[in-house]
Amino acid sequence: MSQDASTEGDLRNTGMSLKHDREWDYELDRIVEAVEERNATKVGLQFPEGLKRRGPAVADDLRALTDDDVTYMLSGQPCYGACDLDTYLMRRTDVFVHFGHSPMKESEKIIYVPLFSNVDPFPMMEDALDELPEEDVGLVTTAQHMNRFGEMKSWLESEGYTVHTRKGDDRLTHEGQVLGCNYASADIDADQVLYVGGGKFHPLGLAMEHPDKKVVIADPVNNVVTVADTEKFMKQRYGAVHRAMDAEKWGVIFCTKIGQGRWEMAEEIVNDNDDAYLITMDEVTPDRLRNFDMDAFVNTGCPRITTDDGPQFHKPMLTPGEYRIAVGDEPLDSLSFDTFHGTW
Amino acid sequence: MSQDASTEGDLRNTGMSLKHDREWDYELDRIVEAVEERNATKVGLQFPEGLKRRGPAVADDLRALTDDDVTYMLSGQPCYGACDLDTYLMRRTDVFVHFGHSPMKESEKIIYVPLFSNVDPFPMMEDALDELPEEDVGLVTTAQHMNRFGEMKSWLESEGYTVHTRKGDDRLTHEGQVLGCNYASADIDADQVLYVGGGKFHPLGLAMEHPDKKVVIADPVNNVVTVADTEKFMKQRYGAVHRAMDAEKWGVIFCTKIGQGRWEMAEEIVNDNDDAYLITMDEVTPDRLRNFDMDAFVNTGCPRITTDDGPQFHKPMLTPGEYRIAVGDEPLDSLSFDTFHGTW
Repeated sequence: MSQDASTEGDLRNTGMSLKHDREWDYELDRIVEAVEERNATKVGLQFPEGLKRRGPAVADDLRALTDDDVTYMLSGQPCYGACDLDTYLMRRTDVFVHFGHSPMKESEKIIYVPLFSNVDPFPMMEDALDELPEEDVGLVTTAQHMNRFGEMKSWLESEGYTVHTRKGDDRLTHEGQVLGCNYASADIDADQVLYVGGGKFHPLGLAMEHPDKKVVIADPVNNVVTVADTEKFMKQRYGAVHRAMDAEKWGVIFCTKIGQGRWEMAEEIVNDNDDAYLITMDEVTPDRLRNFDMDAFVNTGCPRITTDDGPQFHKPMLTPGEYRIAVGDEPLDSLSFDTFHGTW
Repeated sequence: MSQDASTEGDLRNTGMSLKHDREWDYELDRIVEAVEERNATKVGLQFPEGLKRRGPAVADDLRALTDDDVTYMLSGQPCYGACDLDTYLMRRTDVFVHFGHSPMKESEKIIYVPLFSNVDPFPMMEDALDELPEEDVGLVTTAQHMNRFGEMKSWLESEGYTVHTRKGDDRLTHEGQVLGCNYASADIDADQVLYVGGGKFHPLGLAMEHPDKKVVIADPVNNVVTVADTEKFMKQRYGAVHRAMDAEKWGVIFCTKIGQGRWEMAEEIVNDNDDAYLITMDEVTPDRLRNFDMDAFVNTGCPRITTDDGPQFHKPMLTPGEYRIAVGDEPLDSLSFDTFHGTW
């Protein structure tokens, strides 16, 4: 099992950037129907980063199927999940289509097109069996492969496994679904979990959230089977916490993205610490934080920016739980993965 | 006169990044009064890029002057002008303070603190006289030096000049004020204009907008007198237009920042051109546009991103006027600087 240091921990590699071309189902009929039903004249289309370049072709197809007076608008905002809706575009269009993710929260205004993959998951699942010696196994996947989740489960059962699945919590749409920030669907009674899907982003989070479980990755996009290894990330987390222990001035980041805000958490920290300053932003980037002369940051927004992009920031960047350790409120061995619950 | 290629055309160098420390008047009394009057519990503070690191100290001073139950929030969003309000923070705070710019549009919600400079403009103005041989001279400056505009004008008159000044249009608050996107205050009856202020960002725009005028820069921040030279920029503009003439697919950018949107202009282009795609975003950056497989872009947002940052984009980026030339609707000699008018 080799880990590619240049891609893991890179939020752009979420399994959506393609090694080989896949066919996606853009569900144009469903969009056209909504446009006609609502007499829409403005339609917003939002794609995740890896699929943004398909946007113009999708807009072309939709233009051919709808009246000339419909204007299609492509969101140019970064998008890293269903938590990350372009609310500006959503509010100013009659139909707003969010591609690539399943609903974090149902809304009449938004059409979610999950973009189910047509990749065959079974060859890699078969290869993964060597890494799954026990009878009990958990099964999880991402929105892209949800359309075949039932088949995957049946197949594992036919191989003699007792398959454990769970819906997780409100943040998750489907049984067995994981998000980069939520692995409640893996709170199951098995010591090994099979993740079927592209990339290492999701299984790395899963392994950090469930350090007692073996997380086996069957990746049908890159045709590879690996076991998630969190060692590098955990070392980075402990290193960041230690470096932040001397911090005097803290920047507390409140993320303004619709599904990434934890206001009470941010407010509590600044209320309890006179040397903490509340900073609000949508995209949390090294460039933006460089403008603030802080000794350390605590990020109440997307936990994956903290854990995966952490080393790119000029000062230690901690999760709220890690902050409690750094300021001495909690012991070091309480360090755990930061997860997001609820919708917005 | 030497031009520093590494700083001109860099939007971060707007004269706000300091070579020597200046004292700013943050007008804390005015802010405290508003906090008390409105019984505010949430106060938003927005600084331009070069002054963001002063934010925590300003928040500390305000905390000492107001009740404990007031929470101060620092905007971490990039900010490049009064056009660039953090509307998220503005809508979610009881008092919203925008530092470093004068009002583009008055609003009861917003307190504008222009941050007047205490730098003495007269030594550099005196040095600039050698470059101003004619009797008639225009006089312009930025928000930071507006507090001494009357003195500057009187001083020039005492030196024997006939000084021409103008308020410009709705986008400008003060007589003689310029913005990076609006030089209506220099529409005066003189062939030479004296710009007093830091950096080359504003006078370069002024010289591009008024190519028939000599623009002399008296920079009291960096202690230098120069004459604006637009040659490099004009060559880049013609080069970009020529490279875009072969473009088939056009990305048309509509900027969602409150003071940078020109919707009718963007809509007209996509309505007239079947190969044009509307892309919406707040920050217009090379990274974000790289996601779109276009041959060229036309930016209906901030013209300074187009003219000053243009070469950083992977494909030619044109102003709306330059687009008309590239697609053959207008002759090449109609090329002119793109200005913004009106508020929002």
